[in-house]
Amino acid sequence: MIDTMALLDRLRSIVGAGQVLTDAEDLPTYCTDGRGAAGGTPIAVARPASTQEVSELMRVAAQNGIRIVVQGGRTGLAGAGLASESDADLIVNLDRLSRHIDIDPVNRTATIDAGVRLSALNAAAAEHDLFFPIDLGADPSIGGMIAANTGGARLLRYGDVRANLMAIDMVRADADGTILSLGAPLWKNNTGLDLKQLLVGSGGSTGIVTRATVALQRRPALQITALIALRTPAAALTLLLALEEGFGTLLSAFEGMSALAMAAALSHVPGLRAPFAELPDYAVLVELTAGAAFDADLLEERLATILEPLMDGTDAPVIDVAIDHRDDLWAIRHAIPEGLRASGTVVGCDISLRRGDVMRFRDDMMQRLATETPVLKPHDFGHIGDGGLHYNLVWPTSAGAPDPVMIERARVLIFDAVVREYGGSFSAEHGVGPRNIAHYLRFVPADVRALAGAVQQLIAPVSLGRIDFGMTE
Amino acid sequence: MIDTMALLDRLRSIVGAGQVLTDAEDLPTYCTDGRGAAGGTPIAVARPASTQEVSELMRVAAQNGIRIVVQGGRTGLAGAGLASESDADLIVNLDRLSRHIDIDPVNRTATIDAGVRLSALNAAAAEHDLFFPIDLGADPSIGGMIAANTGGARLLRYGDVRANLMAIDMVRADADGTILSLGAPLWKNNTGLDLKQLLVGSGGSTGIVTRATVALQRRPALQITALIALRTPAAALTLLLALEEGFGTLLSAFEGMSALAMAAALSHVPGLRAPFAELPDYAVLVELTAGAAFDADLLEERLATILEPLMDGTDAPVIDVAIDHRDDLWAIRHAIPEGLRASGTVVGCDISLRRGDVMRFRDDMMQRLATETPVLKPHDFGHIGDGGLHYNLVWPTSAGAPDPVMIERARVLIFDAVVREYGGSFSAEHGVGPRNIAHYLRFVPADVRALAGAVQQLIAPVSLGRIDFGMTE
Repeated sequence: MIDTMALLDRLRSIVGAGQVLTDAEDLPTYCTDGRGAAGGTPIAVARPASTQEVSELMRVAAQNGIRIVVQGGRTGLAGAGLASESDADLIVNLDRLSRHIDIDPVNRTATIDAGVRLSALNAAAAEHDLFFPIDLGADPSIGGMIAANTGGARLLRYGDVRANLMAIDMVRADADGTILSLGAPLWKNNTGLDLKQLLVGSGGSTGIVTRATVALQRRPALQITALIALRTPAAALTLLLALEEGFGTLLSAFEGMSALAMAAALSHVPGLRAPFAELPDYAVLVELTAGAAFDADLLEERLATILEPLMDGTDAPVIDVAIDHRDDLWAIRHAIPEGLRASGTVVGCDISLRRGDVMRFRDDMMQRLATETPVLKPHDFGHIGDGGLHYNLVWPTSAGAPDPVMIERARVLIFDAVVREYGGSFSAEHGVGPRNIAHYLRFVPADVRALAGAVQQLIAPVSLGRIDFGMTE
Repeated sequence: MIDTMALLDRLRSIVGAGQVLTDAEDLPTYCTDGRGAAGGTPIAVARPASTQEVSELMRVAAQNGIRIVVQGGRTGLAGAGLASESDADLIVNLDRLSRHIDIDPVNRTATIDAGVRLSALNAAAAEHDLFFPIDLGADPSIGGMIAANTGGARLLRYGDVRANLMAIDMVRADADGTILSLGAPLWKNNTGLDLKQLLVGSGGSTGIVTRATVALQRRPALQITALIALRTPAAALTLLLALEEGFGTLLSAFEGMSALAMAAALSHVPGLRAPFAELPDYAVLVELTAGAAFDADLLEERLATILEPLMDGTDAPVIDVAIDHRDDLWAIRHAIPEGLRASGTVVGCDISLRRGDVMRFRDDMMQRLATETPVLKPHDFGHIGDGGLHYNLVWPTSAGAPDPVMIERARVLIFDAVVREYGGSFSAEHGVGPRNIAHYLRFVPADVRALAGAVQQLIAPVSLGRIDFGMTE
């Protein structure tokens, strides 16, 4: 048995009396995440302010046989930062580990504490006309972004968190809470096995990142956004290839939106302006960004030149185009999740496919779901330029209480098709956690799970976080 | 004792009688690499043509207690693909494992056998107007590029091999020669620990990559190259920041060249044309690339607009500019290694620094080397846009036989300054191997080496390759 009083005293002696939370009014904040869903109740929430404090917390947890669950900005969608129902979890929340934001403007790098939020990093970087190129709707902590290996809307141009991470400081999940520094603020660096990779996309279960050095990019001087209405969803691919040919790396986002997803945003989110007289079956939001040597008129003119032949004739793939130099069109895209939640119960599927398979998959699923789970309507949208798709379904409020059996049937149908028929991913960019780990068990082969579990056990011999990568049936 | 005759028969039964080489006339080809330096003599060279054959070779090696050293294109610069002097190494050369090059033009990916050369991949990709964006002077195999995590001249825009690798098939170094498939041909994919990262930059010592899926990029429709003569080396940084502001991701290379490096290329390599009437102290090769929506005149005009204020006045940072729409200027840059070899004995140091430190380091070293090792002249060049520097020294032929003691003193001086004073890397992009592993021991902390060694032991329990990441003094 844990002597809880003695344990809490030890924790307070590390982080300070006011930074160990156990009261019923304090805990709920730390027990919900990006989906608004509640996790279990932890023994306590400890809020360290330094790597050293995290290390000491780890030592105490190891001595007492309790498990640390690390929590960043509580915007995660896989449940990795929530306590389990076991009553033996200690939440370590890193909000206070956020004092250091050191920008090296010439090197284009930032070294920041893990609890720093994406918005705070970008605010500091903006003073030097730089930004961290992982573009998300939410405002997670940098540590959480590393644990989830987030992707976002500009992956097409800049890659995921892994591709933009140079170094970390970490606390190992071992009896000593060993502190390691891995990597350096260098664009090119190959000095042995790159062990920090084992913390990227780990869901916080292989170690605690306390500081990171990330790559920054120059803020583009110009941005133009076009919402392009398509005759058929399949035309999106034609458009994507034409834009890549014409603009190369100036194409910084290519986001697809189904008619139902757009309609949900426009009906339920105030302040949006409908871009077209009539909503098309499918539309793509295109973002072009360029340096100060160019001007928006030039980009717009060249975009028009590329679109012209695609709009010619009665069967032309492109029906209409709305151009925007501000963020009105992005606002529609960003409003979709809220629009969906206002329409009913959302069943989110964060999947990815080969780019050429996205539209075939949509057609295929549309038919199969209509037969198998007719109440659930696909309202899909997402980063189709990189094959990422938020294949989200809505159980409409008008259809009464959602049927969990039908929802589960739909999920299994979708994920089975994604992975087994299309060779896609059941977890594209929201990371792994309790909410999708059952699919990890189903789809990741036993020999890979066994090796992953052994690696996890080696790097994190003391239980940490919510995921056992070596799980077996 | 190994029964060599029986062992060779087993190997022949796996790969075919003609593909196990032991004759004195066959072996030298497989015992030299990119530096032309000879390694030890192996028991034999086996040339498998499939993943299955590699797996069977691993099983036989494990049973007989012999060590496999994997070899790709023999262009490596760290010695990782050469046999040791132990007489117990079996070279497994992957030249024949090169039948499959499958391009998915819509997904912009290629799935290729590990023995495929970079040039062959690019030739196949070019048919779809695509390319693999790791730009190197040499022509390595894809497997070798993964093992070294090569960088090259366009890392600034496209990242290293790690950032462009989606999936591998591998053979584990275990008693069964277990075959694993890790990853998928997807741009976004997070389904647990990304174990393939443990093979990237491993020097071929953690497993044998037999197939890979890599990201391809659209070939830019336009390219312009400018060689820019600078008043002082420090002006390079001013120029870099101005070009990043103006051109953003259209800046695809930013290569620095010292006067001595340029002079060596121009004096010793036939067919090059001197770009300026008088060689400047320092010059930068700038490459801009863009899609078909632009034209070269436009890029050139915008480049001129950016350079104009930098050329204004008697102390202006930019002295002169040579523009090129073909590859004449690149030819000078690519000729430098040959020029250096023709000038004397080359001492190569593949280092990287924070971008803002590159010129300070050069000044600093120039003075210290002049005092400490005056015969050795820095002829540095490299990828200064990403902080990578080939800080190469030349012992001039005119100075007689090179003094190994002075050469070693220079190396230690350079690497100590790079790592301990500047926080840079002693191994930027040529990978790790016997030639630089002594510095790994000096500079990588004992706790990191211990963990790396344990991870290596876990993933590759049977001895493989030339590197022990857990090495101790």
